[in-house]
Amino acid sequence: MSESILPDIDDVIHAPARLAIVATLNAVEEADFRYLLNATGLTKGNLSTHLSKLEEAGYVQIEKTFRGKTPLTLLRLTPQGRAAFDAYRRNMLRFLNQM
Amino acid sequence: MSESILPDIDDVIHAPARLAIVATLNAVEEADFRYLLNATGLTKGNLSTHLSKLEEAGYVQIEKTFRGKTPLTLLRLTPQGRAAFDAYRRNMLRFLNQM
Repeated sequence: MSESILPDIDDVIHAPARLAIVATLNAVEEADFRYLLNATGLTKGNLSTHLSKLEEAGYVQIEKTFRGKTPLTLLRLTPQGRAAFDAYRRNMLRFLNQM
Repeated sequence: MSESILPDIDDVIHAPARLAIVATLNAVEEADFRYLLNATGLTKGNLSTHLSKLEEAGYVQIEKTFRGKTPLTLLRLTPQGRAAFDAYRRNMLRFLNQM
Protein backbone atom coordinates (compact mmCIF):
# COMPACT_ATOMS: atom_id res chain seq x y z
CA MET A 1 0.00 0.00 0.00
CA SER A 2 2.81 2.43 -0.85
CA GLU A 3 0.32 4.87 -2.39
CA SER A 4 -1.94 4.66 0.60
CA ILE A 5 -2.81 7.42 3.02
CA LEU A 6 -1.73 4.99 5.71
CA PRO A 7 1.82 5.02 7.04
CA ASP A 8 3.74 1.78 6.86
CA ILE A 9 2.19 -0.41 9.51
CA ASP A 10 4.33 -3.14 11.01
CA ASP A 11 1.93 -6.09 11.06
CA VAL A 12 4.06 -7.92 13.61
CA ILE A 13 3.34 -5.16 16.11
CA HIS A 14 -0.11 -4.04 14.88
CA ALA A 15 -1.97 -7.20 15.94
CA PRO A 16 -3.69 -6.24 19.22
CA ALA A 17 -2.26 -9.11 21.27
CA ARG A 18 1.29 -8.35 20.15
CA LEU A 19 0.73 -4.63 20.60
CA ALA A 20 -0.16 -5.35 24.24
CA ILE A 21 2.94 -7.51 24.69
CA VAL A 22 5.34 -5.08 23.06
CA ALA A 23 3.93 -2.05 24.86
CA THR A 24 4.25 -3.86 28.16
CA LEU A 25 7.85 -4.92 27.50
CA ASN A 26 8.72 -1.45 26.24
CA ALA A 27 7.93 -0.04 29.68
CA VAL A 28 10.28 -2.37 31.55
CA GLU A 29 13.79 -3.79 31.33
CA GLU A 30 12.52 -7.36 31.37
CA ALA A 31 9.43 -9.25 32.52
CA ASP A 32 8.63 -12.84 33.36
CA PHE A 33 5.92 -14.85 31.65
CA ARG A 34 3.44 -14.47 34.51
CA TYR A 35 3.80 -10.71 34.60
CA LEU A 36 3.03 -10.59 30.87
CA LEU A 37 0.05 -12.90 31.34
CA ASN A 38 -1.45 -10.48 33.83
CA ALA A 39 -0.58 -7.34 31.92
CA THR A 40 -1.96 -8.52 28.60
CA GLY A 41 -4.93 -10.63 29.70
CA LEU A 42 -3.98 -13.27 27.13
CA THR A 43 -4.23 -17.02 27.69
CA LYS A 44 -0.98 -18.94 28.18
CA GLY A 45 -1.28 -20.55 24.76
CA ASN A 46 -1.94 -17.26 23.01
CA LEU A 47 0.85 -15.51 24.84
CA SER A 48 3.32 -18.27 23.91
CA THR A 49 2.29 -18.17 20.26
CA HIS A 50 2.62 -14.42 20.00
CA LEU A 51 5.95 -14.40 21.85
CA SER A 52 7.30 -16.94 19.37
CA LYS A 53 6.23 -14.73 16.50
CA LEU A 54 7.91 -11.73 18.12
CA GLU A 55 11.05 -13.78 18.71
CA GLU A 56 11.10 -14.86 15.04
CA ALA A 57 10.88 -11.22 14.01
CA GLY A 58 13.87 -10.48 16.22
CA TYR A 59 11.84 -8.16 18.45
CA VAL A 60 11.79 -10.20 21.67
CA GLN A 61 14.47 -12.21 23.44
CA ILE A 62 13.23 -15.24 25.36
CA GLU A 63 15.46 -16.53 28.15
CA LYS A 64 14.59 -19.79 29.91
CA THR A 65 16.21 -19.91 33.31
CA PHE A 66 15.44 -20.81 36.94
CA ARG A 67 14.53 -18.90 40.07
CA GLY A 68 15.81 -21.35 42.65
CA LYS A 69 14.40 -24.65 41.35
CA THR A 70 11.44 -23.08 39.57
CA PRO A 71 11.63 -22.64 35.80
CA LEU A 72 11.42 -19.01 34.84
CA THR A 73 10.93 -17.49 31.42
CA LEU A 74 12.26 -13.97 31.05
CA LEU A 75 11.20 -11.75 28.16
CA ARG A 76 12.73 -8.55 26.96
CA LEU A 77 12.58 -6.38 23.87
CA THR A 78 15.68 -6.43 21.70
CA PRO A 79 17.06 -3.06 20.54
CA GLN A 80 15.44 -3.88 17.18
CA GLY A 81 12.12 -4.50 18.96
CA ARG A 82 12.31 -1.18 20.79
CA ALA A 83 13.12 0.64 17.55
CA ALA A 84 10.23 -1.11 15.77
CA PHE A 85 7.79 -0.14 18.51
CA ASP A 86 9.03 3.46 18.49
CA ALA A 87 8.54 3.62 14.73
CA TYR A 88 5.09 2.02 14.95
CA ARG A 89 4.00 4.41 17.69
CA ARG A 90 5.33 7.46 15.84
CA ASN A 91 3.72 6.45 12.55
CA MET A 92 0.35 5.67 14.10
CA LEU A 93 0.32 8.87 16.15
CA ARG A 94 1.08 10.93 13.07
CA PHE A 95 -1.63 9.15 11.12
CA LEU A 96 -4.27 9.43 13.84
CA ASN A 97 -3.45 13.04 14.66
CA GLN A 98 -3.74 14.17 11.07
CA MET A 99 -7.23 12.65 10.74
CA MET B 1 -8.60 -8.96 26.76
CA SER B 2 -10.65 -7.01 29.31
CA GLU B 3 -7.75 -7.08 31.80
CA SER B 4 -5.30 -5.95 29.19
CA ILE B 5 -3.39 -2.70 29.11
CA LEU B 6 -4.80 -2.27 25.63
CA PRO B 7 -7.99 -0.29 25.09
CA ASP B 8 -10.80 -2.07 23.31
CA ILE B 9 -9.69 -2.28 19.71
CA ASP B 10 -12.37 -2.53 17.05
CA ASP B 11 -10.98 -5.26 14.79
CA VAL B 12 -13.24 -4.20 11.94
CA ILE B 13 -11.43 -0.85 11.84
CA HIS B 14 -7.96 -1.93 13.07
CA ALA B 15 -7.04 -3.96 9.97
CA PRO B 16 -4.73 -1.66 7.97
CA ALA B 17 -6.71 -1.85 4.73
CA ARG B 18 -9.97 -0.99 6.47
CA LEU B 19 -8.27 1.70 8.53
CA ALA B 20 -7.23 3.33 5.27
CA ILE B 21 -10.76 3.07 3.86
CA VAL B 22 -12.49 4.39 6.96
CA ALA B 23 -10.02 7.24 7.47
CA THR B 24 -10.50 8.28 3.84
CA LEU B 25 -14.28 8.18 4.07
CA ASN B 26 -14.22 9.99 7.41
CA ALA B 27 -12.65 13.01 5.70
CA VAL B 28 -15.35 13.35 3.04
CA GLU B 29 -19.12 13.28 2.67
CA GLU B 30 -18.97 10.46 0.14
CA ALA B 31 -16.50 9.00 -2.32
CA ASP B 32 -16.74 6.85 -5.42
CA PHE B 33 -14.98 3.52 -5.81
CA ARG B 34 -12.17 4.92 -7.96
CA TYR B 35 -11.37 7.68 -5.50
CA LEU B 36 -11.05 5.07 -2.75
CA LEU B 37 -8.85 2.89 -4.96
CA ASN B 38 -6.41 5.77 -5.41
CA ALA B 39 -6.51 6.91 -1.81
CA THR B 40 -5.96 3.50 -0.29
CA GLY B 41 -3.65 1.90 -2.85
CA LEU B 42 -5.65 -1.36 -2.57
CA THR B 43 -6.48 -3.63 -5.49
CA LYS B 44 -10.08 -3.66 -6.74
CA GLY B 45 -10.67 -7.11 -5.30
CA ASN B 46 -9.27 -6.21 -1.91
CA LEU B 47 -11.16 -2.95 -1.78
CA SER B 48 -14.44 -4.73 -2.63
CA THR B 49 -13.87 -7.38 0.02
CA HIS B 50 -13.08 -4.87 2.74
CA LEU B 51 -16.00 -2.63 1.77
CA SER B 52 -18.33 -5.62 2.07
CA LYS B 53 -17.01 -6.32 5.55
CA LEU B 54 -17.49 -2.68 6.53
CA GLU B 55 -21.02 -2.76 5.10
CA GLU B 56 -21.82 -5.91 7.10
CA ALA B 57 -20.64 -4.15 10.25
CA GLY B 58 -22.99 -1.29 9.46
CA TYR B 59 -20.11 1.18 9.10
CA VAL B 60 -20.29 1.88 5.37
CA GLN B 61 -23.22 2.48 3.05
CA ILE B 62 -22.73 1.29 -0.53
CA GLU B 63 -24.90 2.92 -3.19
CA LYS B 64 -24.84 1.58 -6.74
CA THR B 65 -26.03 4.23 -9.16
CA PHE B 66 -25.17 5.78 -12.54
CA ARG B 67 -23.35 8.86 -13.73
CA GLY B 68 -24.97 9.28 -17.11
CA LYS B 69 -24.81 5.74 -18.47
CA THR B 70 -21.74 4.76 -16.47
CA PRO B 71 -22.22 2.61 -13.35
CA LEU B 72 -21.05 4.42 -10.26
CA THR B 73 -20.51 3.05 -6.77
CA LEU B 74 -20.75 5.62 -4.02
CA LEU B 75 -19.43 4.93 -0.54
CA ARG B 76 -20.06 6.80 2.66
CA LEU B 77 -19.63 6.19 6.36
CA THR B 78 -22.84 5.67 8.29
CA PRO B 79 -23.29 7.63 11.53
CA GLN B 80 -22.39 4.36 13.29
CA GLY B 81 -19.22 4.12 11.18
CA ARG B 82 -18.19 7.66 12.05
CA ALA B 83 -18.79 7.02 15.73
CA ALA B 84 -16.79 3.78 15.56
CA PHE B 85 -13.85 5.51 13.87
CA ASP B 86 -13.96 8.35 16.42
CA ALA B 87 -13.88 5.84 19.26
CA TYR B 88 -11.08 3.85 17.64
CA ARG B 89 -9.02 6.98 17.06
CA ARG B 90 -9.59 8.24 20.60
CA ASN B 91 -8.73 4.88 22.19
CA MET B 92 -5.59 4.37 20.13
CA LEU B 93 -4.37 7.91 20.73
CA ARG B 94 -4.83 7.52 24.46
CA PHE B 95 -3.02 4.19 24.40
CA LEU B 96 -0.11 5.40 22.25
CA ASN B 97 0.28 8.66 24.14
CA GLN B 98 0.48 6.99 27.51
CA MET B 99 3.29 4.69 26.34
